[in-house]
Amino acid sequence: MTLILTPLPGIPLVRQGDNLAQLILLALDRAGLALQDGDILVLAQKVVSKAEGRLVNLEQVTASPAAIGLAERAQKDPRLVELILQESQQVLRVRPGTIIVEHRLGFICASAGIDHSNVEPASDSREDSHPEAWVLLLPEDPDASAQAIRQQLEEASGARLGVLIIDSHGRAWRLGTVGVAIGIAGLPALVDLRGAPDLFDFRLQITQVGAADELAAAASLVMGQAAEGTPIIHVRGFPYPLREAALVELIRPKEQDLFR
Amino acid sequence: MTLILTPLPGIPLVRQGDNLAQLILLALDRAGLALQDGDILVLAQKVVSKAEGRLVNLEQVTASPAAIGLAERAQKDPRLVELILQESQQVLRVRPGTIIVEHRLGFICASAGIDHSNVEPASDSREDSHPEAWVLLLPEDPDASAQAIRQQLEEASGARLGVLIIDSHGRAWRLGTVGVAIGIAGLPALVDLRGAPDLFDFRLQITQVGAADELAAAASLVMGQAAEGTPIIHVRGFPYPLREAALVELIRPKEQDLFR
Repeated sequence: MTLILTPLPGIPLVRQGDNLAQLILLALDRAGLALQDGDILVLAQKVVSKAEGRLVNLEQVTASPAAIGLAERAQKDPRLVELILQESQQVLRVRPGTIIVEHRLGFICASAGIDHSNVEPASDSREDSHPEAWVLLLPEDPDASAQAIRQQLEEASGARLGVLIIDSHGRAWRLGTVGVAIGIAGLPALVDLRGAPDLFDFRLQITQVGAADELAAAASLVMGQAAEGTPIIHVRGFPYPLREAALVELIRPKEQDLFR
Repeated sequence: MTLILTPLPGIPLVRQGDNLAQLILLALDRAGLALQDGDILVLAQKVVSKAEGRLVNLEQVTASPAAIGLAERAQKDPRLVELILQESQQVLRVRPGTIIVEHRLGFICASAGIDHSNVEPASDSREDSHPEAWVLLLPEDPDASAQAIRQQLEEASGARLGVLIIDSHGRAWRLGTVGVAIGIAGLPALVDLRGAPDLFDFRLQITQVGAADELAAAASLVMGQAAEGTPIIHVRGFPYPLREAALVELIRPKEQDLFR
């Protein structure tokens, strides 16, 4: 089956309180796309976080002694490091410029996914506050965010849909970021192929496919990262049946972790 | 720009000596697709390896003492472990059922990418040789394999193309395999966004996108892994300009590795 990823045109800059499902429906209309059973909407984390008011002004953050110490080792702003610690369960590696953590949501990433780039100052910002003092945290509960958007879109369209929220992560051994899933509703995170016979009737060695992460990477490729960014992608032709799912499926249990 | 990934229909079982470019051109014809500038063909490693005769009969492999010792720790066939060692530069982790290595091509992966599943016995196999005694090594030089296929396709079509060879890898901290690039010709492996202004004129924090790996994941999603597998995907709408490139772009230098 052909997989088609279409960036939705004309998504405006998202602000706290915006209804993303509404923005998506308007953009689908503009693109002449009618939602069908099996379609998936992929959203960049940034628009979800902004809609949910996850912008933080660093000027209002007080760094703890632990954050100040870590900030010195990492050569980062202690207030940013304070937020990284608040958003994390464990610090895995620290180098100048780099803090790798286990995020409270379970995945391993740099800087707890906190982002400076493309962060618009909140509307109540004082004019003299330097724009780079604003940072954006990941959504509080991305699975729930995805589920809420999915529900609105399904109600509006009558179609059975999936919604995926993605971020860009670096990798331990490869250069370059790739899109990964951080919130999932209505599509499988993992697809289990254990026991499915292959062409020569052996049992498959590969047991589980990270289907949601593969789709996240595909959508990330289409989104772009810079000025022309299109933060919402419509997907048609996802090759696996939709089902209820959650991000936790993709998190490797600590006892299976060989590299922490 | 819309990204469209189309699995090519009717690719036959590939055997040593088959001309993959020829198979691709026939399949494109059947699919009614004419190659255009900017199109990319993504090939599963397995078909490239088979065409290049990388099938090995374990019955013809003699395990070294090092392989026998490692096989005991990993609870694997010592002859398979011998091949893993021959294909690797360094062993990183060993657990029952798992050997993680630095492949001679530079990337980190399990079992040096050696594959049991979907491996067809070579045509000269004795009838009494158990089919599972055959395993498939990665191509000798996947960049060169991709380049050779690209050259034939460009000559036949007159279009400027990219060719990507992919495999499925597990991840250190996430469950499920995802497609990754192992051989690249004519498309960027990394896309460098350093210094590109974002929407609010800050410098981007994310510096480099693993574009070839994102495309590999997308194509892997479309290929499937089991009986219905379609090992060659036609891609239209890759969002970055094509250029000369190589896999080595994606390999993180050891001195930047925090997790070896």
